[in-house]
Amino acid sequence: MRGFYIGRFQPYHEGHHHMVEEIAEQVDELVLGIGSAGDSHTPRNPFTAGERVMMVTKSVAEFDLPTYVVPIEDLDRNSVWVSHVQSMSPAFDVAFSNNPLVIRLFEEAGVEVRQSPMFRREILEGSELRERMADGEEWGSLVPDPAAAVIEECNGVDRIQQVSDSDGADTANS
Amino acid sequence: MRGFYIGRFQPYHEGHHHMVEEIAEQVDELVLGIGSAGDSHTPRNPFTAGERVMMVTKSVAEFDLPTYVVPIEDLDRNSVWVSHVQSMSPAFDVAFSNNPLVIRLFEEAGVEVRQSPMFRREILEGSELRERMADGEEWGSLVPDPAAAVIEECNGVDRIQQVSDSDGADTANS
Amino acid sequence: MRGFYIGRFQPYHEGHHHMVEEIAEQVDELVLGIGSAGDSHTPRNPFTAGERVMMVTKSVAEFDLPTYVVPIEDLDRNSVWVSHVQSMSPAFDVAFSNNPLVIRLFEEAGVEVRQSPMFRREILEGSELRERMADGEEWGSLVPDPAAAVIEECNGVDRIQQVSDSDGADTANS
Amino acid sequence: MRGFYIGRFQPYHEGHHHMVEEIAEQVDELVLGIGSAGDSHTPRNPFTAGERVMMVTKSVAEFDLPTYVVPIEDLDRNSVWVSHVQSMSPAFDVAFSNNPLVIRLFEEAGVEVRQSPMFRREILEGSELRERMADGEEWGSLVPDPAAAVIEECNGVDRIQQVSDSDGADTANS
Amino acid sequence: MRGFYIGRFQPYHEGHHHMVEEIAEQVDELVLGIGSAGDSHTPRNPFTAGERVMMVTKSVAEFDLPTYVVPIEDLDRNSVWVSHVQSMSPAFDVAFSNNPLVIRLFEEAGVEVRQSPMFRREILEGSELRERMADGEEWGSLVPDPAAAVIEECNGVDRIQQVSDSDGADTANS
Amino acid sequence: MRGFYIGRFQPYHEGHHHMVEEIAEQVDELVLGIGSAGDSHTPRNPFTAGERVMMVTKSVAEFDLPTYVVPIEDLDRNSVWVSHVQSMSPAFDVAFSNNPLVIRLFEEAGVEVRQSPMFRREILEGSELRERMADGEEWGSLVPDPAAAVIEECNGVDRIQQVSDSDGADTANS
Repeated sequence: MRGFYIGRFQPYHEGHHHMVEEIAEQVDELVLGIGSAGDSHTPRNPFTAGERVMMVTKSVAEFDLPTYVVPIEDLDRNSVWVSHVQSMSPAFDVAFSNNPLVIRLFEEAGVEVRQSPMFRREILEGSELRERMADGEEWGSLVPDPAAAVIEECNGVDRIQQVSDSDGADTANS
Repeated sequence: MRGFYIGRFQPYHEGHHHMVEEIAEQVDELVLGIGSAGDSHTPRNPFTAGERVMMVTKSVAEFDLPTYVVPIEDLDRNSVWVSHVQSMSPAFDVAFSNNPLVIRLFEEAGVEVRQSPMFRREILEGSELRERMADGEEWGSLVPDPAAAVIEECNGVDRIQQVSDSDGADTANS
Repeated sequence: MRGFYIGRFQPYHEGHHHMVEEIAEQVDELVLGIGSAGDSHTPRNPFTAGERVMMVTKSVAEFDLPTYVVPIEDLDRNSVWVSHVQSMSPAFDVAFSNNPLVIRLFEEAGVEVRQSPMFRREILEGSELRERMADGEEWGSLVPDPAAAVIEECNGVDRIQQVSDSDGADTANS
Repeated sequence: MRGFYIGRFQPYHEGHHHMVEEIAEQVDELVLGIGSAGDSHTPRNPFTAGERVMMVTKSVAEFDLPTYVVPIEDLDRNSVWVSHVQSMSPAFDVAFSNNPLVIRLFEEAGVEVRQSPMFRREILEGSELRERMADGEEWGSLVPDPAAAVIEECNGVDRIQQVSDSDGADTANS
Repeated sequence: MRGFYIGRFQPYHEGHHHMVEEIAEQVDELVLGIGSAGDSHTPRNPFTAGERVMMVTKSVAEFDLPTYVVPIEDLDRNSVWVSHVQSMSPAFDVAFSNNPLVIRLFEEAGVEVRQSPMFRREILEGSELRERMADGEEWGSLVPDPAAAVIEECNGVDRIQQVSDSDGADTANS
Repeated sequence: MRGFYIGRFQPYHEGHHHMVEEIAEQVDELVLGIGSAGDSHTPRNPFTAGERVMMVTKSVAEFDLPTYVVPIEDLDRNSVWVSHVQSMSPAFDVAFSNNPLVIRLFEEAGVEVRQSPMFRREILEGSELRERMADGEEWGSLVPDPAAAVIEECNGVDRIQQVSDSDGADTANS
């Protein structure tokens, strides 16, 4: 059985990692979708899709599970979102999510969805993690080591701190 | 004379319905534009364009007025908005709106615009209606019967309640 | 039962009309999708979506069949095309088409498709009809009267003749 | 040496003008990029790209400096923003900006960026200027005369006042 | 009176130059629209918008005529093309073109269009010029000196020759 | 050292496979970009990005080389193509290609490109392979076994044969 788990992974952290560990017990193969793949260089979406592909791939290598890591660009059209995801991903049997909108969209399309209490934790950690980076506080303990290495390689903390001065502007044109 | 009246119709309700009744006395034919046609499955835009086409078409059938119901996707470019609307709609002589931006755009393009005190009511009702649905309160008396039937057929209340838990996220990628 | 039939309707002609007549015997309601809604003013796609909405609506009025006429803009992504169409259209149970790609896409999405020998005729007529208009030959006998009236109202023949001089350029930027 | 300076110029005002004067001493030629070129008719972006091209061109004519004024449409993808700007602009050697995101993007792409304390003033003035116009207060002293002439020619104050009633809606479809 | 003249200017050559000279006698100011601004690096559209802005600006400097040179990205929607062009350009009173589609679109929008026998020559020369460059033949005599200088500065001939080996592929993804 | 190799992989075949084998000797890690990721269900681009991700991932597993397989959607803007690719891919030091346009774009962006005589073979095989499938001839010997398994799992031959009847139409709207 193949499972699908989507996140923005900005960045990939221990919350995601435990989630993947839990999913690994339920599936034979796992597709990890990198959501909002086109976004980067903002306080909320600091890393490019490529940087996130590397973080995720290196981190999940420790699990004995065949994985596919696919960037998925936004289409901004909820009614075709499931088809879009399905076209970018190897065929999957079950989706893992706690996001009510994602659950609704998959269910209306007839895709089985499994929820987990761990998802909420993941969301909170992502936000706190970026704040810690922006404020120059300790963050290394919240992400798997391979992800931390990628963040350092692309000067991620420096980037977050600089773009956080933009007063919430999300694009260079704002 | 052919008139044009655009709304998001999320959903089509009694406020819109009285408006159409009023417009029906001024025109021979009416084009009803379904705005933001590509949006759906959010607390503010719960219904697809197709669901809204059906609500509107079934409801206005009671008036003895030839109508065209056309979904209009967003183009997000105010300067070409009037041309976009005109290309999607049968040619019209007068537009009905109380939205200052819509009025401005039509007027700069040389299209006659008529306003009505009823528009404001319509806006308030749309918002209150969706809140009632989300909160599980009575809503049936606020929409024409044919629209209510469509909402039930697509499990609209259930959908609104589920996506309202998404904390305001407007797309599955947020 | 509700049926769905999509065409570019450039313009709506007798081939389409007979097709609709045939479909009318099989369904209770019919959705007519105006394909490539954003295209206009080219030799192959001379009419705007709004002009086509009017041609179709006026012409099918003679059948005793509830119809919905919906413009559908191109999304240029085959993998999400069915979802896109479904979001713009009232829910339908069966699609009518002879286009192999359309059939394939609907079938992969689990939608029933019915074919008819009449479709081929429709395609040939569309192309020949536009050539006749461009060459100043007789064309009125090939389209229902209400459609002919719309073509005249928007100076359609004049437009086709003028843009046919563009040597196949499909947009003003070519 | 050719410099690049981007702004939304909504409208072009004395803050921008002093900035250009300062830049003029450091470069041989200057490219002025009109950012968010596709936006117009909103309280925050009232003027079209064409109106802004005229304001800027007429105003900078007083400096003895070869200038290029190029509208730049948003691409909403930070990771390709620098390439997009470079493709729309004559080649430049140095960019002038105080926007942290713009600085970050240029620097990651290896483009030299120069900052100036004057930028902050420019931002404040833009916002205050639009408010003055919306409130019917004096504004003429805050913009160069040629820009004021353009604003009057297109009934800019009238437009701002009308769209400011839209309660923050940024497009006609909101 | 302000005139508008659009071309792809791939590259700007003597045919365009004589055309501008002719137009200069009829108007007080001229807007030169750089069409298909987003296209570059193909056999048919070798130069970026920025490179073309520079070619045109430097070349027309010899005429005593205030000019605006504005890149215009394709919108691929004929029905809104005129509005798009008008939003990117300072307001103009008359458009110059021999392209039947462009003429039709402007005329349907109520804009005066003037034609000239010189346009045809311009089209032929653009195509021949690119072929000469691709084949390594003499081309310098066909373009104004300032345009030739820009072409050399960006290694234009080298670029055309290299991309002409792509067998007509228009994008890197083909 | 990390390398980058992009192809449409429609489907992944022995030509690609030998190429990857050759590249594997020159790099420590390899990024395989799935080009035109949004295209599918046409004679030229029959498979979805997800199907291609699976073909490639399963096939290259036999090499002892860390690989990243990333779908890359078309942006149709040559001038930003390199930035787009770089944002979707883990950072790479060298690109492998024989496509003159791709080579030109990478070189203008300062990225090292390596060519190989094997690329030409790869292009020919892709085209011949799809023809064999469409004509019902033997094709299994031209693709690695894991790719053949994916093609069978998604009824790929059946799909190619059906859409090949569409007379070259590339989208459902043509």
